[in-house]
Amino acid sequence: MTSPSDPGDPWRGHDVGLLSPVRVGSPAEAATGDTAFLQAMLDAEAALTRAQTTLGLAPAGAGAAVTAAARAGRFDARDLALRARAGGNPVIPLVADLTAAVPAAARPWVHRGATSQDILDTAAVLVAHRTLRHLLDDLDRTAAALAGLAAAHRANPLPGRTLTQHAVPTTFGLKAAGWRSLALDARDRLAAVRDRLPAQLGGAAGTLAAFQALGGSSDDALALVDAFAAEMGLAAPALPWQVLRTPIADLGCALALTAGALGKFAADVLLLSRTETAELAESGGGGSSAMPHKANPVRAALIAATARQLPALAGVLLGSLAAEDERPAGAWHAEWQTLREALRLTGGAARAAAELAEGLRVFPERMRADLDLTDGLIVSERLAARLTELLGRSPARQLLAEASRARAERGIPLRRTLADSSPLTDHQLNDLLDPAAYLGSATALTDRALRRTPAPQDAP
Amino acid sequence: MTSPSDPGDPWRGHDVGLLSPVRVGSPAEAATGDTAFLQAMLDAEAALTRAQTTLGLAPAGAGAAVTAAARAGRFDARDLALRARAGGNPVIPLVADLTAAVPAAARPWVHRGATSQDILDTAAVLVAHRTLRHLLDDLDRTAAALAGLAAAHRANPLPGRTLTQHAVPTTFGLKAAGWRSLALDARDRLAAVRDRLPAQLGGAAGTLAAFQALGGSSDDALALVDAFAAEMGLAAPALPWQVLRTPIADLGCALALTAGALGKFAADVLLLSRTETAELAESGGGGSSAMPHKANPVRAALIAATARQLPALAGVLLGSLAAEDERPAGAWHAEWQTLREALRLTGGAARAAAELAEGLRVFPERMRADLDLTDGLIVSERLAARLTELLGRSPARQLLAEASRARAERGIPLRRTLADSSPLTDHQLNDLLDPAAYLGSATALTDRALRRTPAPQDAP
Amino acid sequence: MTSPSDPGDPWRGHDVGLLSPVRVGSPAEAATGDTAFLQAMLDAEAALTRAQTTLGLAPAGAGAAVTAAARAGRFDARDLALRARAGGNPVIPLVADLTAAVPAAARPWVHRGATSQDILDTAAVLVAHRTLRHLLDDLDRTAAALAGLAAAHRANPLPGRTLTQHAVPTTFGLKAAGWRSLALDARDRLAAVRDRLPAQLGGAAGTLAAFQALGGSSDDALALVDAFAAEMGLAAPALPWQVLRTPIADLGCALALTAGALGKFAADVLLLSRTETAELAESGGGGSSAMPHKANPVRAALIAATARQLPALAGVLLGSLAAEDERPAGAWHAEWQTLREALRLTGGAARAAAELAEGLRVFPERMRADLDLTDGLIVSERLAARLTELLGRSPARQLLAEASRARAERGIPLRRTLADSSPLTDHQLNDLLDPAAYLGSATALTDRALRRTPAPQDAP
Amino acid sequence: MTSPSDPGDPWRGHDVGLLSPVRVGSPAEAATGDTAFLQAMLDAEAALTRAQTTLGLAPAGAGAAVTAAARAGRFDARDLALRARAGGNPVIPLVADLTAAVPAAARPWVHRGATSQDILDTAAVLVAHRTLRHLLDDLDRTAAALAGLAAAHRANPLPGRTLTQHAVPTTFGLKAAGWRSLALDARDRLAAVRDRLPAQLGGAAGTLAAFQALGGSSDDALALVDAFAAEMGLAAPALPWQVLRTPIADLGCALALTAGALGKFAADVLLLSRTETAELAESGGGGSSAMPHKANPVRAALIAATARQLPALAGVLLGSLAAEDERPAGAWHAEWQTLREALRLTGGAARAAAELAEGLRVFPERMRADLDLTDGLIVSERLAARLTELLGRSPARQLLAEASRARAERGIPLRRTLADSSPLTDHQLNDLLDPAAYLGSATALTDRALRRTPAPQDAP
Repeated sequence: MTSPSDPGDPWRGHDVGLLSPVRVGSPAEAATGDTAFLQAMLDAEAALTRAQTTLGLAPAGAGAAVTAAARAGRFDARDLALRARAGGNPVIPLVADLTAAVPAAARPWVHRGATSQDILDTAAVLVAHRTLRHLLDDLDRTAAALAGLAAAHRANPLPGRTLTQHAVPTTFGLKAAGWRSLALDARDRLAAVRDRLPAQLGGAAGTLAAFQALGGSSDDALALVDAFAAEMGLAAPALPWQVLRTPIADLGCALALTAGALGKFAADVLLLSRTETAELAESGGGGSSAMPHKANPVRAALIAATARQLPALAGVLLGSLAAEDERPAGAWHAEWQTLREALRLTGGAARAAAELAEGLRVFPERMRADLDLTDGLIVSERLAARLTELLGRSPARQLLAEASRARAERGIPLRRTLADSSPLTDHQLNDLLDPAAYLGSATALTDRALRRTPAPQDAP
Repeated sequence: MTSPSDPGDPWRGHDVGLLSPVRVGSPAEAATGDTAFLQAMLDAEAALTRAQTTLGLAPAGAGAAVTAAARAGRFDARDLALRARAGGNPVIPLVADLTAAVPAAARPWVHRGATSQDILDTAAVLVAHRTLRHLLDDLDRTAAALAGLAAAHRANPLPGRTLTQHAVPTTFGLKAAGWRSLALDARDRLAAVRDRLPAQLGGAAGTLAAFQALGGSSDDALALVDAFAAEMGLAAPALPWQVLRTPIADLGCALALTAGALGKFAADVLLLSRTETAELAESGGGGSSAMPHKANPVRAALIAATARQLPALAGVLLGSLAAEDERPAGAWHAEWQTLREALRLTGGAARAAAELAEGLRVFPERMRADLDLTDGLIVSERLAARLTELLGRSPARQLLAEASRARAERGIPLRRTLADSSPLTDHQLNDLLDPAAYLGSATALTDRALRRTPAPQDAP
Repeated sequence: MTSPSDPGDPWRGHDVGLLSPVRVGSPAEAATGDTAFLQAMLDAEAALTRAQTTLGLAPAGAGAAVTAAARAGRFDARDLALRARAGGNPVIPLVADLTAAVPAAARPWVHRGATSQDILDTAAVLVAHRTLRHLLDDLDRTAAALAGLAAAHRANPLPGRTLTQHAVPTTFGLKAAGWRSLALDARDRLAAVRDRLPAQLGGAAGTLAAFQALGGSSDDALALVDAFAAEMGLAAPALPWQVLRTPIADLGCALALTAGALGKFAADVLLLSRTETAELAESGGGGSSAMPHKANPVRAALIAATARQLPALAGVLLGSLAAEDERPAGAWHAEWQTLREALRLTGGAARAAAELAEGLRVFPERMRADLDLTDGLIVSERLAARLTELLGRSPARQLLAEASRARAERGIPLRRTLADSSPLTDHQLNDLLDPAAYLGSATALTDRALRRTPAPQDAP
Repeated sequence: MTSPSDPGDPWRGHDVGLLSPVRVGSPAEAATGDTAFLQAMLDAEAALTRAQTTLGLAPAGAGAAVTAAARAGRFDARDLALRARAGGNPVIPLVADLTAAVPAAARPWVHRGATSQDILDTAAVLVAHRTLRHLLDDLDRTAAALAGLAAAHRANPLPGRTLTQHAVPTTFGLKAAGWRSLALDARDRLAAVRDRLPAQLGGAAGTLAAFQALGGSSDDALALVDAFAAEMGLAAPALPWQVLRTPIADLGCALALTAGALGKFAADVLLLSRTETAELAESGGGGSSAMPHKANPVRAALIAATARQLPALAGVLLGSLAAEDERPAGAWHAEWQTLREALRLTGGAARAAAELAEGLRVFPERMRADLDLTDGLIVSERLAARLTELLGRSPARQLLAEASRARAERGIPLRRTLADSSPLTDHQLNDLLDPAAYLGSATALTDRALRRTPAPQDAP
C-alpha cells in the first residue's frame, strides 16, 4: 500500500474542503479561510497603528507604513502556523514578520501597546462580521424564495403530519411561510449580533496600561479604543472583553439557531421528497453512478448535517464563557477553530438553503393525492365535531370508531358507513370529507406571516 | 445488602433534589417542579376556555367552571405521569381528569379545539416566564452586590493573570465590574427572551381548523389566539410555533449564556480562593467533618458545575429546532425535561451567585502582597517601555533579560541590577517598580462600566 | 390565575416523571431515584464499617450496627437535600444523621476514615451497577425479539433507501438483524463497563492516610479497599479514582452508545410507519383524543427523544475527566444529576425498545408493494450491469437513461422501452425486473448476524 | 481596508493550521489532511480491485493497474472537493477521475460493485487506523515519562487540594502515577478500538447485490468483503455497517476519553504552575513579546483547549448512531469533518502531552514549602484522630477549633496552642505536625500503579 502522502506535498495535512461539501466554494468558506484570518489580523494591526497616528500617539507616516505592509500575500500562513506552537498563538510570529516588513522608522509602532489577544479577537470578530454579510444575503435569498413558494401555494392542501401520521390537512403555503419565519428569526438574530460585534483592545491584562507606559494618558487610551474600533468598522466596547466573552457566545448561539432554523426546512424537504411521498423534489438532485434513476436531495442532506453539528460547536463557545483570570489557559484557544467551523458550516448551509428554496420543485397533485391515503380519516376531527353536534359526543365517537374499524378490517369505505349510519346527506358528506375544505386559518396565517419583514439593521 | 428501596415508598424513583444542591430549596426549583408544570397546564386549559367564553365561543359559565377545577392539588401528578406513557405526553390523561372534574355542562368546553402540544408548550413557556422572574431578581441582586464590590475596591490593585502567570497589575474593581457586566449581559438577554415568550395555540396541525369545525370563523380563530395569550400573560404568536421552535432555542441560549456568565465569576473566585492565593474567600464556606480547618468555596463550585452542564442542555434544545412535520417524533419530547433542568440549574446558580457576591470576603492586603511575588517583574512591561526610551529597544531588552536572569539564577533583586546598570535613579525606580502605579485605565474603565444599567424591560 | 403551587404541597419542586414518559414506571427509574441513591450511600457506609470489622479495624458489632441502621426509609431525603447545600454534597448531613441513628458504641465507626466523595462515588457506581442489570435484561429482550423478526422475515424484500430515495431492494430480515447487531453492541459495552465498575475509597485526598491515623498500617489500608469493594460487590480499584474518572466517562459513553443504537431502530420504525409507507406499525400506538384514527409510534418517538439527549449528557461526563486537584470544584458536582439522567433515560429507552420490538407489526405486502413504486427503477443497478454485458457500458447507460426519461415524461413503462429497445427477452425481463430476485447476500448476511451471541459476562 | 484576500490566492479558504496550534506540524495532522483522506480513498479503491482480482472476479492485471494509478499526487483535491457538492460526497468525482487515469482495459474494474459510502467509510477508518498509531506512540511516550516522574518523586510530599483548599498531604509520585493511569486507560481504549476497526463493503444498500449482478455468487460477495478487509489491513465486518455506526461512535468515545485523560494532566499542571504556586513549570514555556519574564504553560493550555472540544465532537458522532434507512441524509455527512477534527486535535494533544511530560520541571522544595502554608492545619485530620484518642471526640474537636481560631484571629501558631493545652509532648508534636509523616499509602499506591502495563494489543 502506498504511504499516506508524499512528505513534500504542499497540501500535506491541509484542509481544502474535501470532507465538507456544504461549504466548499462558498463565500463563507473564502471569508473564513486561514488567509482571511491572516488578513484580518493584519487589518487589526494596521488599524491600531493608524488609530494611534490619528490621535497623535504615533508619527504621521506610521499608520500608512504598516497599512502598506499588511497584506496577507506577503506572509507565509503555514510558516506562521508552525511558529505559533511556541507561544500558543499566531500573533506572536506575525508581529515579528510584520515588524520586519515595515520600514525601520515605523517598526516601533507595530503592535504598540497591544497584546496578542487584542489582535486575534479583533480579527475573529472582523472575520465574523464579513462572513455574516454573506449569511444575511443568503438568508434574504432563502426568505424571498420561500415567500414566493408560500404565495404560489397559499391554498394548496397537503396532509399535516404529527408523530409521523396524517393528522389534519394543512397547506403548503403555511409550511413555506413557517420555514420563512424561521429564516427571518435567524436573520434578525444574526443581524443584531453582527451590529454589536466589538473590537477588542485591552493590552496585557485589559487595563490598557501599556498605552500609558508608552506616553498616553488614561483618556488617550480610552479614545484609542474608540478610534481603533472605528478604523475596524466594529462597535466600540464598553470594557475590554478578553475574558467577558458574550460576543463570541452570542455569535455561537445565533449561528446554531440559524443552522437549526434551516435544519427544519431541510428536515421537511427530506421527508416530503421520500420516494413514497414525492410531494417535493430538490432541483438537480445529486445522482448516483450505479443507480441512474436516483435524484438525491443533496442540499437538504448537507443542511441537515450542519444542523447536527452546530449545537455542539455552540456548546464549546458557550463553555468558554467561564474563562478564568485575565486570559484563560484553554477556554480562549478552544474558540478559534470552533468559531471558524461554525461560521463556514452555517454559511455553507445558508447558501445551500437559498439554492434549495429557489429551485424547489413542488407537486401539488401528489399532495392532493396523499390527502386521500386515509380515505377521509384525515378529516375525522371535523367529522367528530359535526357528528357530535348531531348525535351527541358518545354516539358520535362510537360511530366513527365503528367506521374506522369497518374500513380497517373489511375494507368498507368510511363514506359508505357514514352514509348508512348517520343523518348526514350525500351533499354534506361531500363537503365534510373534502380535505381541501378543512384548512382552518391556514391561508389567513400565511398571509399574516408574509407581511413580516426583517428587523431594521445597520448598514453593511 | 438491603434492597434499593421499599416498593411501597412514595418517593420511589422520585427526584427531591438530593443530587442537585445548587437548586435545592430555590425559588427556581419550586417554580419548575412537576406540580408547577401541572398547574401551568391547568392554567393553560382554563385560559383557553375563558378566552372562548370571552369571545362568545363558549357559554358564559364555562371559563369560570374550568378555572375553578384547574388546581394542581386536585390531581395526582404521579398517576398522570404513569398514564402519559400510552400517548407519550401528560396532557392526554390530564384532559380526561380535568373533564371529569368540571360540572357536566362545562365538559364540552374543556380543551376544546386544542391539541396536547398547545397546552404543553404554553405551560412550558408559562413556567419559564415565572421562573425567569426569579432569575432576573437574583441577577439584579448579583449585579448590585458586584457594583458595590467594584466601587469599594475601585483602585485596589492585584496581579492580572494571563495563562496562569502574573502579567501586569489590574484592580479588583475592574474584575468585579467585569463580572457585573456579564451578569447584566445575561440579565438583558433573559429579559428580552422573557418579554417575547409566546403562547402556543394551533390545534392538531397548526391550522386552527378545529376552532372552525366547532363553529368559529377564521377570524374567530385568530382572535382566540390573541385572547388566549392575553389570558396567559404571554406574547401573542404571529404563527403557531409548534414546529418553529425559536422561543425554546432562545431560552436555551439565554440560560446557557447566564450560566456561563456566572461561571466566569465562579471560576475567578475559585482561583483567587486557593490556599496559596487567598485573595478572596466565600462567606461561610462549606466545612468538612474530617478537616476542621477547611472552608470550601461551595457556592462557586456549584455555579461552576452548572456552567459545565448548560451548554449541553442548550445544545439539546438547539438540536430540536430541526423538528420535522407538523409535530416531530422525538425532537419535541427531548425538550421538556431538558428545558426544566436548564431553568432550575441556572435559577439555582443565580441564587448562589447572589449569595456569593453579597458575602464575598476580599483581602486587599493579600492582593497587594501577591503583586510582589515576582519582585517587580509584574511591571516589566513598563520597565521595558521606559528603558527603551532611555537606551533604545535592543539594549533595553538585553538589560531586562540580564536582570531577570540575575534574579532567577543568583537571587539578585531586580531593583539592584537596574540600579547598577541603568541610568534610572532611585526615585525613578521607586515609582517604576510600584505595581500600584501601573494600573492603566483600570479605574476609568470601572467607572464607565458601573454607569451601565439594565436594558429597559416590560413589567413583571 | 392561580399561583404556581400551594407552598405546603409536599411535591413542590419535585420531579415525579411528568415530563419524562420514557422512563416513568420503569425499573431504571426506581433504581435511580433519590431513595435509591440514598440507600446506596447508606449501603456504602455500612459496607465500609463491615469491612473494617472484618479486618479487625473496628469492633465486632460495629458493622452489624451500622448495617441495621442504614435503611433509607429511616432518613428524610428532602431534608438531607436541603442540608446538602451548605457543604455542597449530601453525604455530610447523612453522616450526621446516620451517626445519630446508630447505638453510641458504634458511632465512632460510622464513616471512619472516609471522605464524602468515597461514599458518593461508590453509591453512584452501585446505583449504576443495579440499574445496568435492568438495561441488560431489556437489551436481551430487545435482541431476542429482533432475532425473531429477522428470522421470520429473513427473505421478505422491501426497498433499501439511501438519502431518502429507493436505491436497491433489501430484506426486512437484514434490517432487523442490523438493529439486533446494534443492540448487542450496546449490550456488550454496557456489560463490560458494568463488570469493571470500581468501589471508591481514598480518604480526604486519595492517600488513605486517615485509615493509618486511625490505627491501621499502609497494608491494612490497601486491604480495606479490597474488602470494601468485596462488600459492595464491585471491582477493587488499582488507585483511588476520585480524580481519575474513567469509570464515569466509560459509563457515559456506553449509555450514549446504547441510546444511539436503539435510536437507529426507532428512526427506522418512525420512517417505515409513516402514513405513506405503513410497512411497520407499533403495537398499541398512542391515540389522540381529537383524531380517533391516529395510532402514533409513541415508543419509537420516546426512544428517538432519548437518543437526542444522551450525547449531550455523555459530553458533560466526558468533560468532567479534566478534574483538577485531588477533588475538583465543579467537575465532580456536574456528574451526579447528569449520570442519573443518563441511566434512567437510557433505561427507559431500553424498556421501550423491548416493548417496541416484541410488539412490532410488520406488513410484508406493503413492503412488496412499495418495491414497485419506481416501476422497476429500483433494480436499475442490475439492469445496468446486464445491459452493459450485452451492449457495452455506454449504450447500456444511454438505453437506461432513455427508458427512465420515457417513463418520467411520457408515462411509458420501463419494461416496454426495454422490451422494444434491448435484446432482452420477456422471460429475462421478468427475472431482471423482479425486485425479490435482487437481494444479493441479504439472507446470508442475516443468517451470519443471527449466529452472534452476547459476549460472555460476569455473573449478575 | 484591504479586501479579505486575493481571489487568485491558492490558499483562499483553506485551513493550514493557523488557528489550531495544538496539531500544527504533528504526525496526526499530516495523517488526517485532505491529501491523506484522498490517498486513503484511493487505497480503498485499489484494494477493492485487487481483492476482486485475487478472487478471480476481475482480470489479472486490473488490481495492479488501479493500484498504480491510485496515488494522491495525481489528483486535484480542491477540484474534487468542488465537484463533491453536486452529489454530496467526494467519491463520485474521484471515481470519474480514477477511471480516467487507468488504462482502458482496467476501467470496468474501478469501483466495481461498490457505493460511495463503501469507499469513504473504509478510507475514514484507514485514516483513523494510521493516525491512532501516532496517538498510541505519543501516549506511550507520555506514560513512560510520567512513570519516570512518579518514580523520581515517589515520596516527595505536596499539598493535596480538594475544592481549591489544602486538605491533607499527598505525594507528587502519586499524582504522576494517577496521570499515567489515565494515559494508560486512554491507550487501552484506543488500542482496542483500533484493533476492531472494520472495512466497509456493502454496495448500494448493504446487500452486496451488485457483486452478484456483476457475476459473483453470494459466497463470492462474502469472500470479497473478507479479502477487501485483508487488503486494507482492517478487521472484516460481520455485517456491512453503513448504518450500524458503532465503529465511529467507539472512535469518538475513545478519542474524547483520551482528550479528557490528558486534560486532567494539563489541568493539574496549569494550577501547579500558577505564579503563586510554582511547584511545576513547563519546559520552554511560551514567552510574551511585551512581558519578558513570562513563561506560559502553553502546551498544557493547548491540551486543556482540546479537552474542551472533544466531548462536543464525540457528541456529534454519538448522535449519528441514529442513522435512518440504508444511508442517512445528514447523520453520515456530519461525521466526516467531525471525526477528522477529533483525530487531529487529540493527536496534537497527545504529542503535546508527551512533550509536557518529558520536559516537566518539578520543584519539590516549593511543594514542601507550600505544605507549611496552613501552619499545620493540613494535618488537622491526623491531629484530630490523635487528640480524639487522648481526650475523646468532643474535647478534641473543641481544642482544634480553638487552636484554629487562635491562629486566625491572634496569629498564635497552632503548635503553641497545642503545646499549651494538650497532653502532647514536643516530640509528639514534631511528628504529628510533620506533613511528610502523613502520607498514608501514597507510596504503596504509587508502586502498585507503576506495575500496570498497557493491555496487550495486535501488531501495528
